[in-house]
Amino acid sequence: MCQLLGMNCNVPTDICFSFEGFSARGGKTDDHSDGWGISFSEGKGCRIFLDAKPSIASPLAELVRRYPIHSTHVIAHIRKATQGEIAIENCHPFCRELWGRYWVFAHNGNLPDFHPQNNGFFQPVGNTDSEQAFCLILNALRASFPDGKPPLKLLYPVLSKITAELNSIGIFNYLLSDGEHFFTHCSTKLWYIIRQAPFAAAHLIDEEMTVDFSELTTPSDRVAVIVTIPLTDNEIWTQIQPGEILVFQDGLPLNVE
Amino acid sequence: MCQLLGMNCNVPTDICFSFEGFSARGGKTDDHSDGWGISFSEGKGCRIFLDAKPSIASPLAELVRRYPIHSTHVIAHIRKATQGEIAIENCHPFCRELWGRYWVFAHNGNLPDFHPQNNGFFQPVGNTDSEQAFCLILNALRASFPDGKPPLKLLYPVLSKITAELNSIGIFNYLLSDGEHFFTHCSTKLWYIIRQAPFAAAHLIDEEMTVDFSELTTPSDRVAVIVTIPLTDNEIWTQIQPGEILVFQDGLPLNVE
Repeated sequence: MCQLLGMNCNVPTDICFSFEGFSARGGKTDDHSDGWGISFSEGKGCRIFLDAKPSIASPLAELVRRYPIHSTHVIAHIRKATQGEIAIENCHPFCRELWGRYWVFAHNGNLPDFHPQNNGFFQPVGNTDSEQAFCLILNALRASFPDGKPPLKLLYPVLSKITAELNSIGIFNYLLSDGEHFFTHCSTKLWYIIRQAPFAAAHLIDEEMTVDFSELTTPSDRVAVIVTIPLTDNEIWTQIQPGEILVFQDGLPLNVE
Repeated sequence: MCQLLGMNCNVPTDICFSFEGFSARGGKTDDHSDGWGISFSEGKGCRIFLDAKPSIASPLAELVRRYPIHSTHVIAHIRKATQGEIAIENCHPFCRELWGRYWVFAHNGNLPDFHPQNNGFFQPVGNTDSEQAFCLILNALRASFPDGKPPLKLLYPVLSKITAELNSIGIFNYLLSDGEHFFTHCSTKLWYIIRQAPFAAAHLIDEEMTVDFSELTTPSDRVAVIVTIPLTDNEIWTQIQPGEILVFQDGLPLNVE
């Protein structure tokens, strides 16, 4: 199993505080030490940092904790390998270009005995169930909408259908983003919090660290943080319902249906 | 215009020495300060570091200079923008998955008045001539070989044809790798050197720095370094002929034809 951390905001924001607590779970406060990765969408661009080392021992993770990259869509993952050896090609998040946008995906769970036929365009490079599933999702989206990204109302049911099929095989919590919409699917566990004015102080569970967001924000800022297990012990987190796909934009879940 | 640096080796090697001199050209010894990037192929995996800051002022570049990542295929680029604003999505190298492998591309030159019809699968995300050209190359390869990567003898003429077409539009020096073959095209200027036993000391042009490779290598190591302008002043660099595509593997140019 693995753990997921996502962030979606209305203005580019750094994830240093949340990543501090999250990355501690990669070998210090928890045992997800088979590699890690994080993606930052910046405009249409995307930067991904991957390391097969545990996040607590990785010079790259140290850089991400210390160097504030401002982004509206962030997906992070710490890995505890179930399928696929410990290697860069098996680290999440995975990325593909579809419709002239970078799509990024990370998975928590396990799809046992999952050896799908893949006659589509996107092919996995590594040998995880997660990357296979990501390729199937993108192939399904592209097959349904060959000419470009459709409105969310049309995309959502196609994504829901392929997600339900994959979810029936095993555990399939995921974060998926194209830098415009931030999709979160809860299979078994996924929590979120929305931080907005009036901002307060937050205290990490995994590190002795508190940040007072009221000192760092403007009144119009809004940030959604999505995570496998809540990161703070003095805030109220909301559980996404199993089987639900929540779509975030500008730090808020959208009402799609 | 921009500058390119490539490395191809028979055993995974770090590029710290060459990158030290190369990255100095991103704002210190030269004015290519509109962003930079570097890719490392590691097995089938690939890591790319991008920054829109000048390479001499980038914390990420500092990490790459200090943290030895061992790779057999490296492509680095420092940018002086000709087309496309200064932004992450316009930093080279670009990456796409084709045939279950990551393909990485960086370009030196300029393709003026280049607004191709692109009805293929791969679409540019940013707005550079370079990414357009990369997508056209991959679309041409995929259209010719839809079922998977063909033997090099079959791939080479298709790559040569589309390269010649693009080269006729402007200046089109490039580095292209899928982690298995390392393609280098000289349009106007591209140099290479092969370092192998007996190893000697090399002295950078751009920094006061000498490395004695005989102390760091084993007799069977072999490293090809490919660059827009030679990096050292006490070694003999070979110019690739304009119009030529050299393919490197295990640190040696292959005899394809």
